[in-house]
Amino acid sequence: LTTTSKLLQRQGYHGTGLNQIVAEADAPKGSLYFHFPGGKEQLVAEAIGETANYLDRALAAHDTGSAASSLDGYLTTIIDRMERSGFQDGCPIATVALDVGASSELIASACSAAFDRVAGHVAAWFERDGVDPETARASAGFVYAALQGAMVFAKARRSVQPLEELRAALPSVLPRASVSS
Amino acid sequence: LTTTSKLLQRQGYHGTGLNQIVAEADAPKGSLYFHFPGGKEQLVAEAIGETANYLDRALAAHDTGSAASSLDGYLTTIIDRMERSGFQDGCPIATVALDVGASSELIASACSAAFDRVAGHVAAWFERDGVDPETARASAGFVYAALQGAMVFAKARRSVQPLEELRAALPSVLPRASVSS
Repeated sequence: LTTTSKLLQRQGYHGTGLNQIVAEADAPKGSLYFHFPGGKEQLVAEAIGETANYLDRALAAHDTGSAASSLDGYLTTIIDRMERSGFQDGCPIATVALDVGASSELIASACSAAFDRVAGHVAAWFERDGVDPETARASAGFVYAALQGAMVFAKARRSVQPLEELRAALPSVLPRASVSS
Repeated sequence: LTTTSKLLQRQGYHGTGLNQIVAEADAPKGSLYFHFPGGKEQLVAEAIGETANYLDRALAAHDTGSAASSLDGYLTTIIDRMERSGFQDGCPIATVALDVGASSELIASACSAAFDRVAGHVAAWFERDGVDPETARASAGFVYAALQGAMVFAKARRSVQPLEELRAALPSVLPRASVSS
């Protein structure tokens, strides 16, 4: 699943073949249909679920107690990773959602659940800061969308500038606490 | 080029074959390498340029004199289009940027130029509203990134809700004029 995610974020769904996954994962070929009887579609859907777990843990690892500083730290890590990968790495979920979100219901729903999970984590940070639940949910969706878009631009431009600009813009668009604490 | 863009936004770079492009465009096969001696890579790069032209005209067609209402109208059109296409349509530039932005310099640079052109159009709207150039540029990048991300979410969720939420959130994140007119 880890190998699949890694290849998906670099080459997309149609650019990633089962043979390549099996070869890079150093797995016996027969094991693929044993573990994933639904073939490539099931494998990719489960890899997206695994990526969501990974992102959830990554967010938790960057939690500093306030949404603003946690997001800033998380963005710093993303910027660092994209730069070190020579802009090969991106978001496997977004890449797959654009490639096959329209044609595979199984994969679309895995991507949707993954996005909800990440946005839900950020929304919980906002709520902890005193933002009302509805504003927290909407703002988290907006911030996560901006992050996705900035990663697309960074990959096209082969520059972290769009992500640095997002980091600079974030403080002015974060939701304000609805209760004074 | 139009057929290529249409197929790219539904299936991505690796999911779109030259044979399918030629068939759907109803073009003689020999014409492809006559017009595009660089093959698929050149064809896709030029289709991205054509898409940028199209988006530029679409933005101009939605210009109502103020950035806020122009963007609102543009978003309404995007929401309508995504819904009518059954969430098949997305942004061909983002899809291609994620698929091959890392491996093809020609295509990455075409995507980057296309993004700059759209963001530049929005930045010009902000400037016309009295926003200083640097803030206008940064805000346009941020708004366009959020739009890209919301389109990815809409495709995965097969729902226009992420785009409707972006439209609702926009007024509170648009830059303010730096001079009182």
